[in-house]
Amino acid sequence: MTPPNTARRRETSRRAILTAAFDLLQEVEYAKLSIEGIAARAGVGKQTIYRWWPSKGAVVLDAFLMLSEGAEGEPIRLPDTGDLAADLTEVLRATVVELTDARYEQPMRALATEIAHDPELAATYAQRLDGPLREAKRQRLRSAQLAGQLADDLDLDVAVDLIWGPLFQRWLHRGGPLTTDYTDRLVATALDGLRPRR
Amino acid sequence: MTPPNTARRRETSRRAILTAAFDLLQEVEYAKLSIEGIAARAGVGKQTIYRWWPSKGAVVLDAFLMLSEGAEGEPIRLPDTGDLAADLTEVLRATVVELTDARYEQPMRALATEIAHDPELAATYAQRLDGPLREAKRQRLRSAQLAGQLADDLDLDVAVDLIWGPLFQRWLHRGGPLTTDYTDRLVATALDGLRPRR
Repeated sequence: MTPPNTARRRETSRRAILTAAFDLLQEVEYAKLSIEGIAARAGVGKQTIYRWWPSKGAVVLDAFLMLSEGAEGEPIRLPDTGDLAADLTEVLRATVVELTDARYEQPMRALATEIAHDPELAATYAQRLDGPLREAKRQRLRSAQLAGQLADDLDLDVAVDLIWGPLFQRWLHRGGPLTTDYTDRLVATALDGLRPRR
Repeated sequence: MTPPNTARRRETSRRAILTAAFDLLQEVEYAKLSIEGIAARAGVGKQTIYRWWPSKGAVVLDAFLMLSEGAEGEPIRLPDTGDLAADLTEVLRATVVELTDARYEQPMRALATEIAHDPELAATYAQRLDGPLREAKRQRLRSAQLAGQLADDLDLDVAVDLIWGPLFQRWLHRGGPLTTDYTDRLVATALDGLRPRR
């Protein structure tokens, strides 16, 4: 068994490393982020980092997981006022605020692009970070479906992708401004579809 | 004026560099692609590359532009049989084939992630590579709109994002299998919307 003091010291080092990685990503571009740099900022030896993480992408992912730990094990929930359009509009507007927040934008871009090149990291991300969030989105849509507000035969995974995929792409590729006009139209168009409603 | 022979030699070097970059991306991961490596493979001095391109991301973008030059200035067109669902389904299935083609996948991932970190490259990409393609998508939707198959007040940019955004995100983040079942549902759900059709 690991003695309690050792476990506590390890946890302190782990948090220092993750905080250092996150902070550094606000100062340097991801390509220039190094394990050496993280170790120096965290005040640990770089071997400690190499021992605990397979890549710098994995460190960044764990830094995001630490940030989302705040909720203390409670499952994520999307607002559910009974008005699906209003709830989704609110969530998407809040997502834009987060995506463009100076503290998070560079680290999120780093994570998004590491996942694109690293299938193993993508699997961990899908399971631990995106998984619980996606489940919350699905639950909100399921609640609307049970209330007869969404089609009975709707594929909830496709529905989640339709609402959040366009926003992600526009953000990642800077394809256009992330205005509330855009997010509100996106929600309305996804709900109503492209065809005329008669 | 540049003498014709010099111009011809330049064009030969330019094509050799772009081909070398594209080929190398099938052998090494993007992080390990270097200007030195491209120069060696192309048989040119690395100063030539530094003189013509500001970054390796810009080389990769030009490599894709060279590939799309085949059409000899003709504008891109999406199929238009009059059956929008069938046409979009065909286009999305073909896009999946391209996105998962071993020759293109790594270079496309490299380009997608460089754009995420480089606003200037993103602007060039939006204008020169994605712009003409997006215009073709908008034209196909506009044709359906004129035929009364799409809502009169539809925002065509939001509509393009709704159809292609989810596919891009699933591909980039490996969020799930890129099956024809997925692309077909995506088209059907975007056209009909999430709400029940009565």
